[in-house]
Order: sequence, then C-alpha cells, then structure tokens
Amino acid sequence: MSYMKPNFLLSTPAAERLYFDYAKDMPIFDYHCHLPERQILENLPCADLCDLWLSGDHYKWRLMRNYGIDEAYVTGKKSPEERFVAFCKVLGTAYGNPIYHWSQLEIESFFDCELEINEANAPAILAQCNSYIRENGVTPQKLIERSNVRALCTTNEVFDDLTVFDRIAENGYGFRVMPAFRGDKIMNIDASDYRAQLDRLAALTHPIKGLEDLESALELRLLEFRKRGTCACDISVERVYAIPSEEEADRVLQTVLNGQAPTAAEAETFKGYLTYFLMKLYAKHNLATELHVGAMRNNNAVMLSKIGADTGFDSISDANSITLMSRLFDRLNSEGALPRTIVFNLNPKMNAEIMALIGCFQSGEARGKLQYGAAWWFLDNKVGMERHLEDLTATGHIAAFVGMLTDSRSLLSYPRHHYFRRILCNYLGGMMSRGEMTSDEKAVGEVVRDVCYRNSIRYFGLDRDPFFQN
Amino acid sequence: MSYMKPNFLLSTPAAERLYFDYAKDMPIFDYHCHLPERQILENLPCADLCDLWLSGDHYKWRLMRNYGIDEAYVTGKKSPEERFVAFCKVLGTAYGNPIYHWSQLEIESFFDCELEINEANAPAILAQCNSYIRENGVTPQKLIERSNVRALCTTNEVFDDLTVFDRIAENGYGFRVMPAFRGDKIMNIDASDYRAQLDRLAALTHPIKGLEDLESALELRLLEFRKRGTCACDISVERVYAIPSEEEADRVLQTVLNGQAPTAAEAETFKGYLTYFLMKLYAKHNLATELHVGAMRNNNAVMLSKIGADTGFDSISDANSITLMSRLFDRLNSEGALPRTIVFNLNPKMNAEIMALIGCFQSGEARGKLQYGAAWWFLDNKVGMERHLEDLTATGHIAAFVGMLTDSRSLLSYPRHHYFRRILCNYLGGMMSRGEMTSDEKAVGEVVRDVCYRNSIRYFGLDRDPFFQN
Amino acid sequence: MSYMKPNFLLSTPAAERLYFDYAKDMPIFDYHCHLPERQILENLPCADLCDLWLSGDHYKWRLMRNYGIDEAYVTGKKSPEERFVAFCKVLGTAYGNPIYHWSQLEIESFFDCELEINEANAPAILAQCNSYIRENGVTPQKLIERSNVRALCTTNEVFDDLTVFDRIAENGYGFRVMPAFRGDKIMNIDASDYRAQLDRLAALTHPIKGLEDLESALELRLLEFRKRGTCACDISVERVYAIPSEEEADRVLQTVLNGQAPTAAEAETFKGYLTYFLMKLYAKHNLATELHVGAMRNNNAVMLSKIGADTGFDSISDANSITLMSRLFDRLNSEGALPRTIVFNLNPKMNAEIMALIGCFQSGEARGKLQYGAAWWFLDNKVGMERHLEDLTATGHIAAFVGMLTDSRSLLSYPRHHYFRRILCNYLGGMMSRGEMTSDEKAVGEVVRDVCYRNSIRYFGLDRDPFFQN
Repeated sequence: MSYMKPNFLLSTPAAERLYFDYAKDMPIFDYHCHLPERQILENLPCADLCDLWLSGDHYKWRLMRNYGIDEAYVTGKKSPEERFVAFCKVLGTAYGNPIYHWSQLEIESFFDCELEINEANAPAILAQCNSYIRENGVTPQKLIERSNVRALCTTNEVFDDLTVFDRIAENGYGFRVMPAFRGDKIMNIDASDYRAQLDRLAALTHPIKGLEDLESALELRLLEFRKRGTCACDISVERVYAIPSEEEADRVLQTVLNGQAPTAAEAETFKGYLTYFLMKLYAKHNLATELHVGAMRNNNAVMLSKIGADTGFDSISDANSITLMSRLFDRLNSEGALPRTIVFNLNPKMNAEIMALIGCFQSGEARGKLQYGAAWWFLDNKVGMERHLEDLTATGHIAAFVGMLTDSRSLLSYPRHHYFRRILCNYLGGMMSRGEMTSDEKAVGEVVRDVCYRNSIRYFGLDRDPFFQN
Repeated sequence: MSYMKPNFLLSTPAAERLYFDYAKDMPIFDYHCHLPERQILENLPCADLCDLWLSGDHYKWRLMRNYGIDEAYVTGKKSPEERFVAFCKVLGTAYGNPIYHWSQLEIESFFDCELEINEANAPAILAQCNSYIRENGVTPQKLIERSNVRALCTTNEVFDDLTVFDRIAENGYGFRVMPAFRGDKIMNIDASDYRAQLDRLAALTHPIKGLEDLESALELRLLEFRKRGTCACDISVERVYAIPSEEEADRVLQTVLNGQAPTAAEAETFKGYLTYFLMKLYAKHNLATELHVGAMRNNNAVMLSKIGADTGFDSISDANSITLMSRLFDRLNSEGALPRTIVFNLNPKMNAEIMALIGCFQSGEARGKLQYGAAWWFLDNKVGMERHLEDLTATGHIAAFVGMLTDSRSLLSYPRHHYFRRILCNYLGGMMSRGEMTSDEKAVGEVVRDVCYRNSIRYFGLDRDPFFQN
Repeated sequence: MSYMKPNFLLSTPAAERLYFDYAKDMPIFDYHCHLPERQILENLPCADLCDLWLSGDHYKWRLMRNYGIDEAYVTGKKSPEERFVAFCKVLGTAYGNPIYHWSQLEIESFFDCELEINEANAPAILAQCNSYIRENGVTPQKLIERSNVRALCTTNEVFDDLTVFDRIAENGYGFRVMPAFRGDKIMNIDASDYRAQLDRLAALTHPIKGLEDLESALELRLLEFRKRGTCACDISVERVYAIPSEEEADRVLQTVLNGQAPTAAEAETFKGYLTYFLMKLYAKHNLATELHVGAMRNNNAVMLSKIGADTGFDSISDANSITLMSRLFDRLNSEGALPRTIVFNLNPKMNAEIMALIGCFQSGEARGKLQYGAAWWFLDNKVGMERHLEDLTATGHIAAFVGMLTDSRSLLSYPRHHYFRRILCNYLGGMMSRGEMTSDEKAVGEVVRDVCYRNSIRYFGLDRDPFFQN
C-alpha cells in the first residue's frame, strides 16, 4: 500500500468533510486541455502504461533529465520497460514534486494499483496496470467517463478539421467535446512556415491579401467553431505588446505576404494588433478568452533540432509588462469590447500585479469577469496552488473563481482536478478549523461546488443547457 | 454568534498571552491615514452603517464588482438598504479576504453586533448597528476614543487650511490630530490643473516664478505645518526617478509656467528633483518621510470618467527601479540629508530588494532609521502581513519596527491595528511555542509593546511629550 | 539554558529521526567559503569570542546598525567588551533573524555555552567562551575538525599564492583545503586598479597584450590551481550580459591597456565575453561553475570611503535578465561547452525563472547538471531555505540537490550546515507525517545523506577518492 491515504492532503476534519461531501462527486469540466480529439473519436484500446505515461509528457521527461537520466531512456531508443523502470527510479525519490503525487494518484484511481512507485516496484506496477488495461479494455473514452468528465475543450488551430467534432457529437457520448479556438499559428508571423499557415486558413475561407481579409477569415472560422459548441478561445503569447494602428499591422502583413521576413519589431507590432483584434472578436461573439502569458520557449537549440518543440525545453519569461496589459484591457474596455478573460500567468513575480489589475476591470457583466487563472505549468503544484489560493482570496473573491483545468496532453490527467479540490478543501477547512471563517459547512460546501464545477459552467455560458446541470 | 472568537488569529497559548497581556491595551498612534480632519472637528452624529461602510470605501467596491454586482449597487442609485444587502451577500462568501475579517471586527468592536455577516443576516445587522449608533449617539470622536487612539496624522496637501487643526487643538480632545505634509499636487506637474495648484500655494506664500520660489514656498508651508505638530511627511510616486540638476528641473517648471504641457520625460525630471528636494527639506527639519512607491493609477478610463479617481481602479506598478532608489538614498546620505524614512512598497516582488537596500543606510542616528513599511493596500491582509513579518525578521530587526497604520479613509478602520497586533503576537508566539526564540515572555511582551505603539512614538520624535507616554 | 533544545527546528518525530539518524553525523564538504587559507595554515590560537564574532562579519554589523547602534560600537573604537555587550543587546530581541539562531548555535556547539544571548548575559557569555577558548587551546584547525569538515574550498583570485595550499597538503590535516578559482579581479575591467591586477597575472604567466594573452594566462593559472585540487570555479557578476564577439572584447581590453577607462557599455561587453570564456574554460577542464548573480554593491558611498568594501553596504540588484541567461547557457551548450553549474541567485523574484530555465539544460551528463543553488546571503535564513526547498522540490528533484555551503568569512559558521540539515529534515519529515510521501524512512534517510554530503562530493568529481568516502 502506498503512502497515499483517503485523507491525502486533507489535514482537518472540516477539510475531509468538504472534500468527501461536496467536492468529490462533482463532475469535471476541463475547459482547457490539449487532448487530440481524434484520439477520443477513434477510441483505440490503450495497451500500455509506459506509452500512456512516457510517450508524450514533457513534464516527466524534464524530471528524468534533472536526475541525470540519459536521453536514450527519456525519449530515446531504450525499450519501453527500460524507460519505465528508469522513470520509476527517478520518481521514487522525487519528494515534493507534483509528478510524484500525480503519478501515484493515476495508477490508484485508474488501475486500482496501490503499489508505491519506485524502482523496486516498477516491474510489478507495469505488469499490474497493463493487465488491468487489457482485462478491462481500457479506452480513451472509458478513462474520460471514469473521471466523471462532463465536458472538455480541446485546443484547436483555426484551420483544424472540425468534422471530428461533428462525428463525436453524432455519437452522443456521456461527455461533450468542444474545440477551443486558438490563433497561435496565425499569430506567430515570425515563424518560418507562416505563409503555409495563412494558406491553410485561406483554403478554408478566401484569399488573404491583407489584414482585412485575415480578419474576416478568422471570423468565418470562429463561426464554424461556434457551430461545434466553442465557448472558449485561447491566446498564448510570451507577453502583451503595445497595440499598433490597423495600418501598421497591415503593413507588416504585406511585408510577409511579399515574401520578406519581418523584423523582431515588426513581429511584435503584428502580434500586438492581433491580440487586440482577437479579444475584440471574442467579445463580439460573447466568448471567454483564455490569455496565456509568460512562456519563453525553445531555450535549448540542440534539443530543439534533435527532438523538436514542446519536449521540455521551455521556461518562464520575464518580458511581460503590466503597463501594456493595462493598456490592452483599458482600450478594449473603452470600446465596449473587453471579453470575459482568464489570465494564466507563468511568472509568479507578476501575480500581485495581475491580480490587482484585473480587479480594475470587474463589473456587473459577470461574476469574476476577469479571472486570475489557476496555477499553470511550472506553478501547477501543491505550493503553487496554495500560494494561488492565498493570493486570490486575499485580493479577490474565492466564490467567483472558475477553478481548475488540466492543460494536459495526457488522458490520465483528470486526477489533477481532485488534487486541486483536495487543496481547495484543505485551504478552506483549515480556515474553518482555525476560526477564521464561518463554520456553516453547507454554505462553504456550496462555494466548493461552485469552484469545482458550476462557476466554470456559468462562466462559459453553458448553464442554461440541461446537460450541464448538477 | 459569528466565527470570530476571542482568540481570533491567536493559535498558541503564548500568542494569546502576548496579545491580551501586552498588545491589546496599548494605545494607537495612527501615523498615516486619510480621515478628513474637518469630519473630526465637526463631529456630526453618525447615522447609518451603510453610509459608514459604503459611501467611500473603494476596497469594498472592488470586492462587489469582483463578484459581478451591478454598479448601481456599488456606487449607484440603489437605496442604501439594497446596497447594504448586496454587500453583505458578497461578503458572506469572501473567505480569506481581509474585508471579510475587517467588517466582522468592525461591527463587533464598535456596535457590539455579533451576527455573522451574510445575505440572510444583512437586515438584522443593519437594524442592530443603526440602532446602536442612534441610541449611543455615535460620533467620529467617539469612534476614535473607543479605539484608544492617542493620536492620528491626516494627510494634507501643502495648501490645505490648517486652522481646522488649530481648532481641534483648542478643543483639547483625548487624542491629538496632526497634519502630515504631502506635496502630491505640487509633485504632479503633468496634471491638467497643475497651474491652479501652484496658484493655491502661491496665494498662501509668494509668487512662484521658478524653482527657487517653489522651494521657499514649500518650506514656508512646512513651517506652518510644524506649528500644528506635523511630525510626518509623505511622498507618493509611482516610482523613484533619477535626480536631475536644479537647472533641469527649473527649466521644466518654466515650461509649465509658460503654459506648455510637459513631456513625459520632463515630468519625470521634475518629479525626480522634487522627490530629492522634499526629502532633503524633511531631513533639514528633522521630520520623518513616508515614501509610498508602486501604485499605477486610473487603469480604467471609462470608470474614471464616470465616477472619478480613487474609486477602486488603481493597481500595482512594475516600473520602480532599485538602482534609482539606491542613488536617491546615497545622494541624500552623502549630503548629510537623508531623513528617517519609511518605505511603503506596493509591489511585493521588490520587497527583498528594498529590505536589503535600506539595510545599507541604517546608522546610529535612530533605531531603524530606514523602515520597511507595514504591508500596504493590496498587501494589507493576513498573508501579506505574515510574509512582511517573515521578511522583516529574516533580514531586519523586529524590535526596531514602527508597526501598523490604517492608511484609511474610514472611521471604522482602527480594528486593523488589532488585526495586525494579533498577527504579530501569533507570529512571535508561534516561534516561542516551537522553541525558536526565548521563552522570556516579559522580554517579548516589551518588544510587542514597542512595535504596537512606542517605536512609532519614538520614531516620530514624540517620546519626550508626556501626552504620548504609556 | 537557552531556548534551543535538541529538537530545535524539528517539529515531528520523523524529522527528528531523519536528522539524528541520518543527517547529523555526515561530514561537511563546504564547497564555497571565504576563509583565508593562511589562517588555517598558521593556526594561531584563537583568544576571544568578540574577535571571532565582530572583527569581520558584516551580517552582524548590519544588524547592529539596523537597531541604531553607533558605528563606534560596530566597527569603531569602542573596547571589545563594549562592542560585545552592544551586539548581545541587539541580538537579544532579534527574533526571527538568522543571526539570532546562528550565534546561539555557535556558542553552544563550539564552546559548550548554553546561556541565552542577551544584554544581561553578555559578560558571562564572553567570560565563559573566552575561558573555554583559552583552556582548550582553540585554534582554527580545531574548530574545523570539531565541525566534522572533510574538505573546504576557499575562494582565490587567479594570481593568489598557491604555495599555502601545498604546505597545507604536506601537513596532511584530517581535512582538505582546496582553492576555488575566481576571476573577479580580472573580470572587473572598470575597476580603477585594473591594470595592476593584469600585471599581477602577467607576472605569474606572460605579458598580456591582448585577449588571446589573457585567455592563455588564465588557463595557465587554472592548471596551477588544478594541481592543488581545485574542483570548483567561481564567477560573480551583478548580472549576465550579452556575449559579444572575441574582437569586440579584445577591442575593449586594448582600450584599457592603452590607459583609457572603459565606458559602462564597454565594461559590459568585456564582462559578457569573459563570463562566456571562463565557463567554457571550466567545461574544458571538467570543473563545476558556481555562478553568483544579483549583488548590487557599495550602495553607501560615505561608508565605502570610511571603512571600505564588504562591510555591510551591499544589496540585491534587479538588473539581471533571464533572456540573457538563456542565451549564455544555450550558446555554451550548443558548443558542447556548458559546464556543470550551480546558479546562486540573490534576487528571489527570479527564482522561478531560473529554476525553470536550468531545467532546460539538464542531461544525462550528471545528476542535477545545473543546480538551483542553496538560499544565499540575504536569503540564507529559515524562511529563505524553506521557500528554496518548496520551489526546488516543486519544479526540480530534491535527490539531485548538492545542498548547503557557508559562503562565510568566519571560522564559526559550520553550524549553518546543521541549521540547513534540520530544516531539510523538518521539511521531509513534515511531508512524511502528513502522508505526502513515502514512509520508508531508510530510503528518505539515504536522500538526506546525499543532500547533506554525498551529492556535492559526486558533483565536484571527488567520489572516486577514498578520502571522501562515507
């Protein structure tokens, strides 16, 4: 039996009651993830825990490299079993790391395996989980259903094939799959393959000869997304830029359409405009924005050329500017075009600035119109979540919070919602036990349920649909 | 009965003893607040808790907007009762927010109302508190006296009418009211009404035709302030600027006197000079400086035009520079003109830099000549205070600390001193209980008394006046 | 008897067992300190606690100035006894400050003095410790031996006299003393005496007429260091700069060789190049780099001219750039020349950025090839260490950590290793007690031993030498 007991992370009786009586059975709305929708549709049987864990999770790869494991065992040519044992060896002493907890939660909640993860237990864990997987015919859909997921939003580029979502909808699973609209490939005008990306968008809409064409093409695609239930839109930039005039942005686009690479300043001009335009577009269609800021990508050129992007070589930027973020929100707000926005910030030193800023744009339009998004990526761990809750409650309103998301590429990540829920309940239960808040457990329990599920349903405009009721 | 028990925030017996035996009965010296002195002098009966709470407190307004409350209930035309109920509804689930604690403390300590604040209890709370207010003829002076306030410093512009302070002094209340000297309106040369501000200063002194005139006018006014007991001076800037030459500053002033608006760079030049000049002036007159840095104001242009400044749309700047702050302090120090200074910093990411910097300018001139001011504004909450104490004690000296202030516009804010005192006692009591510091309770208690009251009295030069003895 | 009990900082039974059964008796490898090697060799009897404490420790001086003690008692002409009493008075109420703990640990562990440090006990403490020192013939070597130090690295400039290390080696003490190679005086091209420093290097090698000469001279010296067992090299810069071309750097050096002072930009160019060159050189010789970033020095010009540098007037810089650090590491890595590197960062707001960045350069070359160095200088205190462990475990791997160092000029600083060990054991023991990690105490204990000693031995390449076995 592992160290993980039923009251894991719940250090007071009040915390336990909040979790078990209110949080545990709430459905999950995973409003931002990176699951491939086709994998859900095809629903091919899973076969192997090594594949589920190590085929694509750059969090785990980083941890292995940190411990000095050779790349052959990380993403290289070693056998699945060898890689699995190496990972379990690394994990066995990764005390305090979220992957240490997540992985243990995953094998216990999906495969009823209670062995503690370490090098000695590795073969038994692999055998036990793989046999569970085979015997129970585990599939992506079964993993999602077992997790009590009511709906999830995948993250899709503007030119992605949406018919997959039509087919998923026709099949009528017990959960909904909706595409979130993301314009990264259209945003990143400095990418070497940018023209090809524009062509893909044009092929689905109309020729793009300038900014006006681009804008209308994006809106056409957004309407197609909306038909598939899109309720969330994503923007991911290293930082918020100044907003140039439409003419300036058009000039940069023309430069690129004429075959020239943009300068760094030109690229910033274009991204500044497009961030502004997209948020305005989302506001027009009453869609919530998920604004991700603060990632500094591809720090390691050697590994980028060897194994590509999104493989564990990104980090945290220090380039963001609260002044420019203020200008962006204020400009949109002045034009009546500031959408509901969740700010996911990767650099914790900006948390206070951002919390304080979004408080300047709250209004009667929505409960928590602007949100200080849950602890993200490098901050998505116990101490990161606790600090997030401390900061959020100190300067904001906990009952307005839309709560957790996985942001994950893995089908096994849903227990992270419960990791968050336990931490939330422990935080509130702790304050109750210390006499720092009401002892009215029912009232607190309703807030817990709101934060676990209902606030996000309301925030993304799904609360009138009976499917999402709880 | 509410959740708030006598041992609120005191989690060890040692903490309880420190608070009840040493901290609780110490008088309050509120050395920086924004109460209108005229309100104290006029002493009109208070009538209504809704007015006391919601007529001017932008902290509460922000919290309501965060929860999605329509502006009509926040600063708008809804009836006082409707606004009060809306506020109580919002507050009822604002777990972890300082306003949740402050408000409960306020009705319990001022109006003996122990009902827990929430929507259901709102009408009863309003009725009970309002009837207490009427029956006991509650007035501003009674609120101050009940709070055991020995003295308070209002914040006054250089041209404010000081006769109000004369009349207060003549009346000889049980507490003293002293104006703190603040040059904001003379500092902000980029304000559209700057000329009018200069004229107001000139009208009280002499024509202002250049920097020299301005400097002497400011000193004349400071002397007038001193006659009314001024012991503290305030400077509030988004950030510390480079110090230009006197000629450069004069040139900017001439530009403005000639009717031209200054450029952004010119405004910075002027503010950089005036910050330096004012601190030098304060040092000359042996007055302590309260240096507030890090506010980014008026982020929301729509609301600024609708309801004006100081209504909840300010946030935290990231523009400050520790290098320039070092240059400022070093220049003043080299000229023998660095005053005792409390640095109030709004951006927590600079706390370590500032703590370390002020340690470079400590000297035998005063205990804690430079101070790392108490957690301010967006940081003025339980976790902010705890982090402040952790940082202060780790790199400074707790027994040199001048402690808490309200910085408030509300007559009901004095319980925040007790909120701080409880957190202080809990912090020290916790270390005692864990064997991390002496168990000599009497010695610790004397430090507690120093931090609660006596250090600030000494710091502001009032310790020789028997009125302030304790 | 003082407040300091055997279970000091150990708040759970698991923490106590980890410390007493695994951590306590591990040897110390102090891989970065500022002890003068000659003091160790000469081994003159210590005579006086006042001298040991107050003759050179700017941490203590700062604390005294913070409390308002006159400089005469800090570094001035007052008698040793007067200065000692003043220090004890200050320390008696410095609750929460690391010096409060360190000093108590020091007199208890070195001189069996259990009196609590405060003004009243000061004379007795001085008498008791001084008589212990005399009666036991306490010497530097005895202090080191009593601390169970297996080895220590002093910090030496490139032109330091290395024969002292030869003589120490010949004497064959129970501990090793190795010089760490530090190029500060060659780095700081903007120093007024830079030419003299170059001359000292040239005198030991060959004439330096340009960058190529400088590079080969540095390498020659590094080879001399290696002969004395050097395993660690140090670089200390306020921040990481951009890397210029060799030609640009050479041009700056020529300017200075021609007798001109470099501009600020030229100095940065040179430092940027030399940082890059030195790390490349260290990688070539398979030596680990200790990269110290973030100190802003000599803030107080008055005191600098009065009592010189390194006397308590340094602070924390905000000038560092994670982008430039990323470029530096990536450039070196692309050239196959990124050495094992421990980043010691003084500005805590950059901790998350740096933690995330170094994770991008981990590899199979070493366990924890890049290290997030232990809490340093202004962060070297209980809360700083706890936050360091929280951040390290949340985004890195605790079992890869090379652990503590003193970075101290004082012979009495070794108890800081035990201060760290207690905090480490308390952190892990707390997680064990709360069921957040394995309860396999033996496994955890081995990790504790690794972090206390064995990881650093392995990291610096000493694990094959039987002398360092444990």
